[in-house]
Amino acid sequence: MKQLSQIRIVLIDTTHPGNIGSVARAMKVMGLTRLVLVRPRYFPDAKASAMASSAADLLTGAEVVDNLDAAIADCQLVLGASARSRTLEWPMLAARQAGEHIRQAVQAGQDAGRIAVLFGTESVGLSNDQLQRCHFRIEIPANPEYSSLNLSQAVQVICYELRLAFLDAVDSSPPAEPTDPAYAPADKQAVESFLQRLQQMITELDILNPAQPMLLMQRLRRLFMRARLEASEISILQGIVSAVLAQQHRRKDKPADKQQD
Amino acid sequence: MKQLSQIRIVLIDTTHPGNIGSVARAMKVMGLTRLVLVRPRYFPDAKASAMASSAADLLTGAEVVDNLDAAIADCQLVLGASARSRTLEWPMLAARQAGEHIRQAVQAGQDAGRIAVLFGTESVGLSNDQLQRCHFRIEIPANPEYSSLNLSQAVQVICYELRLAFLDAVDSSPPAEPTDPAYAPADKQAVESFLQRLQQMITELDILNPAQPMLLMQRLRRLFMRARLEASEISILQGIVSAVLAQQHRRKDKPADKQQD
Repeated sequence: MKQLSQIRIVLIDTTHPGNIGSVARAMKVMGLTRLVLVRPRYFPDAKASAMASSAADLLTGAEVVDNLDAAIADCQLVLGASARSRTLEWPMLAARQAGEHIRQAVQAGQDAGRIAVLFGTESVGLSNDQLQRCHFRIEIPANPEYSSLNLSQAVQVICYELRLAFLDAVDSSPPAEPTDPAYAPADKQAVESFLQRLQQMITELDILNPAQPMLLMQRLRRLFMRARLEASEISILQGIVSAVLAQQHRRKDKPADKQQD
Repeated sequence: MKQLSQIRIVLIDTTHPGNIGSVARAMKVMGLTRLVLVRPRYFPDAKASAMASSAADLLTGAEVVDNLDAAIADCQLVLGASARSRTLEWPMLAARQAGEHIRQAVQAGQDAGRIAVLFGTESVGLSNDQLQRCHFRIEIPANPEYSSLNLSQAVQVICYELRLAFLDAVDSSPPAEPTDPAYAPADKQAVESFLQRLQQMITELDILNPAQPMLLMQRLRRLFMRARLEASEISILQGIVSAVLAQQHRRKDKPADKQQD
């Protein structure tokens, strides 16, 4: 269960410190230990410690960062808990499927320490922008007439499903074969750097809809996040983007003064 | 799901009113509505209402009784949530099995309104005497080194399992895929036609390795097949490829005669 313990839980913009404590307890009873806090409004705080009960060690060990990217920069698999239906559809796993998906990924060699599950602020959950950093949205099946789980309850259910998925698997599986480095998942930084260059490319290609310039990039981001790009695929795609950009720049340079090539 | 809503949750000797409110919310988000309180230390209480959020109706409708027998007098199936191992061994169901067991009982004709799940006081859980009023003990799998779930977290997990068990029974279909036609999977012809144009594009970009010209396209095909492209994504990708090809063709035309721009 060592791998289970390494999966990181990331709370974004948490407003009630009591919830942070309840989350720590919800994690520890299921065997998770890595808590990352993005811009907590109050932390450390006596209420967090009170609610954490015997999970105060998770609070002491919590990483506090001031932006989401810092929280997940080295992550290869990112999932976001979100009950809300979005204008932008995002690949979805129910909580039980998510536990199973993560367990299978780890069994296949995915480093559990580079898996993160994100939880948004209490009032509105994850923003679309935050969700777009996720490979999958996790949905907890709930009463359609009142589906708003308290933050720590949502963490509890997902950590419970993670524990059950890993319990099922424990010791029954052969050790994973080492992953061929060529097929290793890309880390988040590499993906973001590719997406930035891709955005530059489509901007220069002049195919954006002026009324909704961000929509195209959102759709591309959604596609490439879903595909869970591998490190070598990033190299290939970066190579293509570079070739297109180089060609664009030659075109732009040439008609202006033709002085060099 | 009407039957699910009738299963009663019984809290015994609850000392923290905030927990009662959290339990109400945990129940309602999973579609349960019947809360029975045995000797609550503080109730009604502002903290209970605050934690209940939009589940305040469950607090208003809660039955308050002064002994356990009154709470379950008419019950035909009683289960007790208990993490502690007892001197007295008791028939045990893990939370998931308990959901399944209850669902099967209801399907076999058991009146859901006469099923109760008991939760003991926060500090020590159910007493042996209380447990002996149960047909089964329910255990939530937890970290053996720290297995003490907060009361409302325990209620959340068990109500979640109940909901899933009843959902499975009601309609066994997986969660619906997005039905928006914009997100429909592309057909095979559309994918192949895109991949052909992509191959043309990278060939003209002149980035193929002459020793292994097919390798790059193989990797791209693997990536895009894995992603299971949607119809609208094909359109987007075709649009990008067209823009790049158009630019390439302008470049090729231009150096030859420079007559137009």
